[in-house]
Amino acid sequence: MRPQVLIIGCGFGGLEAARALRAADVDITVIDRTNHHLFQPLLYQVATAGLSAPSIAAPTRHLFRAQRNVTTLLGEVVAIDAQSRTVTLKDGALLRWDHLIVAAGATHSYFGRDEWAPHAPGLKTLDDAFEIRRRVLMAFEMAEREDDPARRAALLQFVVVGGGPTGVELAGTFAEIARHTLPGEFRRIDPRQARVLLVEGNARVLQAMPERLSERAREQLTALGVEVKLNARVTGIDAEGLDLTTAAGPERLLSRCIVWAAGVAASPLGRALADATGCTLDRAGRVVVEPDLSLAGHPNIQVIGDLASAQSHAPGKEPRPVPGVSPGAKQMGRCAAANILKRLRGQPTTPFRYSDYGNLATIGRHSAVVDLGTPAGPLRFSGYLAWLFWLFAHVYFLIGFRNRFVVLMDWAWAYWTHDRHARVIAQK
Amino acid sequence: MRPQVLIIGCGFGGLEAARALRAADVDITVIDRTNHHLFQPLLYQVATAGLSAPSIAAPTRHLFRAQRNVTTLLGEVVAIDAQSRTVTLKDGALLRWDHLIVAAGATHSYFGRDEWAPHAPGLKTLDDAFEIRRRVLMAFEMAEREDDPARRAALLQFVVVGGGPTGVELAGTFAEIARHTLPGEFRRIDPRQARVLLVEGNARVLQAMPERLSERAREQLTALGVEVKLNARVTGIDAEGLDLTTAAGPERLLSRCIVWAAGVAASPLGRALADATGCTLDRAGRVVVEPDLSLAGHPNIQVIGDLASAQSHAPGKEPRPVPGVSPGAKQMGRCAAANILKRLRGQPTTPFRYSDYGNLATIGRHSAVVDLGTPAGPLRFSGYLAWLFWLFAHVYFLIGFRNRFVVLMDWAWAYWTHDRHARVIAQK
Repeated sequence: MRPQVLIIGCGFGGLEAARALRAADVDITVIDRTNHHLFQPLLYQVATAGLSAPSIAAPTRHLFRAQRNVTTLLGEVVAIDAQSRTVTLKDGALLRWDHLIVAAGATHSYFGRDEWAPHAPGLKTLDDAFEIRRRVLMAFEMAEREDDPARRAALLQFVVVGGGPTGVELAGTFAEIARHTLPGEFRRIDPRQARVLLVEGNARVLQAMPERLSERAREQLTALGVEVKLNARVTGIDAEGLDLTTAAGPERLLSRCIVWAAGVAASPLGRALADATGCTLDRAGRVVVEPDLSLAGHPNIQVIGDLASAQSHAPGKEPRPVPGVSPGAKQMGRCAAANILKRLRGQPTTPFRYSDYGNLATIGRHSAVVDLGTPAGPLRFSGYLAWLFWLFAHVYFLIGFRNRFVVLMDWAWAYWTHDRHARVIAQK
Repeated sequence: MRPQVLIIGCGFGGLEAARALRAADVDITVIDRTNHHLFQPLLYQVATAGLSAPSIAAPTRHLFRAQRNVTTLLGEVVAIDAQSRTVTLKDGALLRWDHLIVAAGATHSYFGRDEWAPHAPGLKTLDDAFEIRRRVLMAFEMAEREDDPARRAALLQFVVVGGGPTGVELAGTFAEIARHTLPGEFRRIDPRQARVLLVEGNARVLQAMPERLSERAREQLTALGVEVKLNARVTGIDAEGLDLTTAAGPERLLSRCIVWAAGVAASPLGRALADATGCTLDRAGRVVVEPDLSLAGHPNIQVIGDLASAQSHAPGKEPRPVPGVSPGAKQMGRCAAANILKRLRGQPTTPFRYSDYGNLATIGRHSAVVDLGTPAGPLRFSGYLAWLFWLFAHVYFLIGFRNRFVVLMDWAWAYWTHDRHARVIAQK
């Protein structure tokens, strides 16, 4: 019987690991809670009605149709047993493995305030995106039917919490919708009077970027009509709005559409792994891995992607933490696959080394900031050219030829018409 | 103050009525429970993962953006008052009207067996389509994880109840998915072993068609791999399957994916109208209208589309019932709008006359049946040419240039690759 490789999760890390084993003499099982691989960097476009879900979500088993050593299963892993080398699914089924790659990703963290969740959805899954889309569009619909000016103003106030890439993208696109997509379609309200706020706890947005690009991003957001509130701490969220504390004192913002883009927590499978193997979790619940991405004392279990607290080991340099971005997850996926092959051949495994190709974030219709590492040193630019670069980089990495083409078409259309075609609110 | 025209429902009838009033000196309010106009003839493609929802659903207010005398509202009408000329919305709001067009459409009817509904969803809304898509795809996913041969066979049994156009389209596409889209993507099951059954209570499918075309449709379905059961009466549906009675006696079909395409009932607003005006309802709950589509004694209320039990009044001919198809609804919408203008000018209204351009139904990848009325007599054909005709007719009538283009692209892609791109199962 060939070695059984089980991969939990088919995000960027899991997908890449399975693909890297395409020629290996192993049986691979990929199990995921959903039936699709999601191109998460464009999920904010689904949430803001610019793209339809199938444009960024490819059926997992379709992606593996030609890779005959992969079996795709739909299911949720709830427990891991390192002794018997099995995992237990939610419906009680058991799956056996010889090599396990855990790539279960991350979810939102409300920093212990889970009661905020129903009032401020985060953006990790397609269902999250549909919920945000529904709230944004419903706020305008309800405002059109509201006669009371105060309640109408509250309906037209949109708050994004968290100034990372997702928060910046969402806030910029909300402003674009209010300023460019919807005007002319309402008779009682002027969508341009909508107020979009981006609330960030630190002194600048896009913390992973150099300071100059953060400042450019803030300027571009402001030019789009987004009010950026820095050094602002959220102290409460309820069905009517949220409470802030800034240098100017406490403040109350009324809003029926609050989006949470502030905190990330590792998948609960991290806890399950710790129970099974005694491995260490970091503060965010991520699994602390060995240099080769395996668990201490469990060389046949590897953890990759957002669930891993991993270090990059470049020769002659200090280990550095790997950022939680998709290139990191993909590179870990390839490293984990290579290390399985090495172990099967009896060779020593290699430590993970992260190649940082840079950092991009888009801000709205034609602005973005780009920070690239090149052999000649960092290349940093912003504005229209950065936006074009961002656009083609994202479309290039989209899974599957058809999706790339469809997404480009959708964007070309949206660009010329300001139209956002995916404005369907599913009924309740 | 200009006359207030209120249109309830923005399906084919309501949309057409509002458009026909574009140059009129009236204020039009279009109210709908959803935010989109749905191109229902292609809804089965969303249910079978061939098209994404935004391809066939255009935001209603976007369609009316340039028609300045239309205000679009999202809301559900629950009561109508003919005395005070108001309607009441679900949230208690009141809307005033001088002229009312009720175009609230139809819903499923389980012939008094509403307990069947959760086990056999119908196909009227986008949410219905998502639910059917989820059930079809989940059945294959669960079969891939099922070891018991009997349970696996039950999971791979798909039953469509009702041999009208929707039932025929769904059954044909299910067979296509099993035979052409999914093979190669599973490792433990062979999707080609799926059994697709079409259950019809009468002696032939597509009853609205001439007998010869019904027979051709049955042959084409059989060639695609659909088992057509005629003269089969459904006596029970539960979570595990359905019970039938045929000439051969009672039969039990195990299935986890049953779709109801058998019965149509008028919207509950028909009952509300009867309460308000004393108008007559027919057996299906449809409102019996005067020749000019108004209600007896209430000339300023008109009922159109699937909610109306209307007659076609051609000069020198007996009145004939209008079929429940989209051209009928559109023509009634234009007639109702014209009659409002006539009443405003003090002219007599004209009776509704239905122009029957024919009848189409598609059966699968390249079969269809077409029955056209031409001045030279009926033109009837089937097969590949009929399919091309069906394709272009549907794409031509799709709302909005972009949608037409996207749908054609999607079909060109699906045609060459057998791929169905919209195979996303949203999480629960």
